[in-house]
Amino acid sequence: MGNIHQIQTYQTLAFINQMTEIEEIKQALLQFRNERDWEQFHNAKDLALAINIESSELLEQYLWKSAEDANPQKVKEELADILAYAFLLAEKYNFNIKEIILEKIQKNAEKYPVEKAKGSAKKYNEL
Amino acid sequence: MGNIHQIQTYQTLAFINQMTEIEEIKQALLQFRNERDWEQFHNAKDLALAINIESSELLEQYLWKSAEDANPQKVKEELADILAYAFLLAEKYNFNIKEIILEKIQKNAEKYPVEKAKGSAKKYNEL
Amino acid sequence: MGNIHQIQTYQTLAFINQMTEIEEIKQALLQFRNERDWEQFHNAKDLALAINIESSELLEQYLWKSAEDANPQKVKEELADILAYAFLLAEKYNFNIKEIILEKIQKNAEKYPVEKAKGSAKKYNEL
Amino acid sequence: MGNIHQIQTYQTLAFINQMTEIEEIKQALLQFRNERDWEQFHNAKDLALAINIESSELLEQYLWKSAEDANPQKVKEELADILAYAFLLAEKYNFNIKEIILEKIQKNAEKYPVEKAKGSAKKYNEL
Repeated sequence: MGNIHQIQTYQTLAFINQMTEIEEIKQALLQFRNERDWEQFHNAKDLALAINIESSELLEQYLWKSAEDANPQKVKEELADILAYAFLLAEKYNFNIKEIILEKIQKNAEKYPVEKAKGSAKKYNEL
Repeated sequence: MGNIHQIQTYQTLAFINQMTEIEEIKQALLQFRNERDWEQFHNAKDLALAINIESSELLEQYLWKSAEDANPQKVKEELADILAYAFLLAEKYNFNIKEIILEKIQKNAEKYPVEKAKGSAKKYNEL
Repeated sequence: MGNIHQIQTYQTLAFINQMTEIEEIKQALLQFRNERDWEQFHNAKDLALAINIESSELLEQYLWKSAEDANPQKVKEELADILAYAFLLAEKYNFNIKEIILEKIQKNAEKYPVEKAKGSAKKYNEL
Repeated sequence: MGNIHQIQTYQTLAFINQMTEIEEIKQALLQFRNERDWEQFHNAKDLALAINIESSELLEQYLWKSAEDANPQKVKEELADILAYAFLLAEKYNFNIKEIILEKIQKNAEKYPVEKAKGSAKKYNEL
């Protein structure tokens, strides 16, 4: 109940402040961090470590199995942890999440032109 | 120029369709993937591998250095890659990015109550 | 006591068979694996996943801390897990551990000639 | 030619000094490091980062492929890098490679008793 209530609080605040979804997520993460006084630990290098650790916890869901046999509930939680730390690292550098992803898509579009990359899993330097 | 143009295309489409930012990012990623016919390679297990590989490329920016000495431009690109694969894996499971992060914050709030976790970097099972 | 006994068994066998240390480690790992009928899970790709997962468990010992504050006992166990899976993957390909490391040292010696690399943490392509 | 010569030098030294193979590998790694004055960068935390980075470069050999389609030559080199950093981290803590692996096998034998673990890929806490 407390949980649902707090999520509603974030969403009401988002509505009042006309925040975008990504801004809303960021605010919820910063509030969680600041209430615990954890900014002191969150330097960029350790946030990069945290992303790696969570990424491996995600990977563990698939260890010795095929993709289909992973537990979606656990995948969901590990993926959420990765995203949370990735958003916090973006915030540390004042990166705009949407902008950096769209920019990288552009850059990858040049490294992997459709006519060469279509249907191929090769790395750009092997195409 | 082509780059700016294509980003504008995504944004115009987003405006017309009243997409949220996250939906907009997802559509750009799917378009990039589908133009290259890469869905065949993107099973959930390999997407989890890709997230790990990109996370280590991010980590490499901090290797043998302090957080301040990392190159922000490279950090930005590696972080974008992590986010891109994380969004694609979320899409594979039909997870709603905002929902799964807010849910995880709630769950972590229970594991790390403010009164016990404030100012401490200990893991929940050591608090 | 059982533990000490079993370690002694490995070492006695090693002595009788004039095994090298690395061969001895390999035999102990294979015996452990075969007693549990785990070879069926240990394909090379999943062994690479396992190495990554254990490597992140090692990394977690340093998260939010300086190198000195990590617990050596836990570092020891995580490092042993990484080495165990690395030896098992080497065995899968019939790689000789000593040879592949000495060969890689030679290759790195060419990428990082002393006169250019001395005292520098730069990557070979930035030297 | 230089390469073969240097490997022979390590092996001659090893023979003269009656070094074990593992000691021989360690000496070759330390010599490589010290000639480049790299000990200053090799604190335990960054060595753990290096192990993770190399582990992901290994993982990349299997990305979007089945185990059989990975290039054994590249696998060999990435595995050698992981082992090299793992040996250097062990040296930093004065761990004996053989001892820590045999100890961990014992510990895992208790977590995964044959009668429960045989033929199962489950984690010990799910057995």
